[in-house]
Amino acid sequence: MSGSPLAGLFAPAGAADEISLTAHHGEFVAALEREVRGRGHRLVLLGVASPADIAAQAEGLAGVVLLGFRDDELAGLPDLGTRAVAIDAYARHPSLAVIRTDDAEGGRRAAEVLLSRGHRDVLVVGPSDETSGVMRERHEGFRSVFVAAGAGAPARHMTAGTTVREGVMLGRALRARHPSITAVFAAADTLAVGVMEGLALAGARVPADVSVLGFDDLALASVVTPKLSTVAQDIPRKARLAAEALLDPRLAPSVAGPLTVDVVVIERASIGRAAR
Amino acid sequence: MSGSPLAGLFAPAGAADEISLTAHHGEFVAALEREVRGRGHRLVLLGVASPADIAAQAEGLAGVVLLGFRDDELAGLPDLGTRAVAIDAYARHPSLAVIRTDDAEGGRRAAEVLLSRGHRDVLVVGPSDETSGVMRERHEGFRSVFVAAGAGAPARHMTAGTTVREGVMLGRALRARHPSITAVFAAADTLAVGVMEGLALAGARVPADVSVLGFDDLALASVVTPKLSTVAQDIPRKARLAAEALLDPRLAPSVAGPLTVDVVVIERASIGRAAR
Repeated sequence: MSGSPLAGLFAPAGAADEISLTAHHGEFVAALEREVRGRGHRLVLLGVASPADIAAQAEGLAGVVLLGFRDDELAGLPDLGTRAVAIDAYARHPSLAVIRTDDAEGGRRAAEVLLSRGHRDVLVVGPSDETSGVMRERHEGFRSVFVAAGAGAPARHMTAGTTVREGVMLGRALRARHPSITAVFAAADTLAVGVMEGLALAGARVPADVSVLGFDDLALASVVTPKLSTVAQDIPRKARLAAEALLDPRLAPSVAGPLTVDVVVIERASIGRAAR
Repeated sequence: MSGSPLAGLFAPAGAADEISLTAHHGEFVAALEREVRGRGHRLVLLGVASPADIAAQAEGLAGVVLLGFRDDELAGLPDLGTRAVAIDAYARHPSLAVIRTDDAEGGRRAAEVLLSRGHRDVLVVGPSDETSGVMRERHEGFRSVFVAAGAGAPARHMTAGTTVREGVMLGRALRARHPSITAVFAAADTLAVGVMEGLALAGARVPADVSVLGFDDLALASVVTPKLSTVAQDIPRKARLAAEALLDPRLAPSVAGPLTVDVVVIERASIGRAAR
């Protein structure tokens, strides 16, 4: 174990030169801070303008957690010279450990829940597969179950991000653009909550007219109306595994394969039987 | 200026031994990280179990920002031996600088907006004045304008925190408990958003039946339905002043009085004329 008392959490400093502390990232940061502190270290939070800066910035730290970088950015990193863990990554890199949610299984579970309620005409929404391995896996898992059930591949709508705002725009236009859809699987709770609001603005009832299923189980999910059904990520467990990989002397500095965290579907009020 | 490359952001580690990264705190942390980085330092995020630990944990840092501590906790701190800034504090302490929003002015502006729309029977909701100087000032500012206008002191409801969940409970029961109320001033956007949801669940229309005004102007405020009118805090400016106070060599290590950040009322759709 390195003698440094500091572990890093690095995230991209975006357009406003600022880290994007989304609800998911905020929950992860709080959980990681606790885990790092419990192991006698302190957490340095750092926005990096370019992935090319990561190696220099990691110098002198006991390890770094990388959050929010694209897979192509991670794959192109040099050896960082310190223990490094990428969260929710699908990049392959010889010295980068990976901790991620079982996104493909999450997609499969989402599909099973919707099929069991009679939904066959479903829209999957989320960022493009090309920019996000997470989205590719969730989508592919979902698609595979639909195809195996003879329901065919679900319709798809790509968004730039996962903001509530994008969900609202999508929800407002949904029934005009896709009149036969009975359910939406949104690959993030923030997007799902926006879709529900947009549907309501357009006069549709959730779930009587359209069911909505999210992904994450953020605190937000259980306070919106109706309460959001969602594929729950175990964010505290991801944080614990990340801290262990960086700071636990019993664990080897390199990890052979990705560590995958299980998902579970939480059924709340936003899903019902498929509308006739 | 201290030679340490590290500045601290300390926050209470609560019941789950975890920092509470509320939406407001998340926005502040992201902004502070940028400001600290721009001054050639790095930000250490640390949860502290007890205020008694703050002094020892601050050793070796160029300075510390204290976020989310109660005024009585801050007033009882020893000299920290490093530059220290408390955010949104009303505690008096010989070596602690204070940066806060002009909460009293925020309360006054809130009252003026509601009076101008004909509201005289208003409920003010938020945490108790005893535990929060911020709430005391917002409430007192609001009250003073109502009394000066001959409208009398507004009704008051104390909450334990500022969560959406508490707002929902309050909103659901509002018209049964306070049938004559035409507007609610919630001392945090999260609480206000919950109140709007609770009112909707109980069948009341916002703003046709009840107007709702928040405080903060979080990203949340402009994505809910209806969009929330609110007293905007300038969170990026608070973060910039905090970084300057800690790290700018031209500024004296102790600050004579609190630095106060201006507020502005943002009018969106959640306020209307008082219902007859």
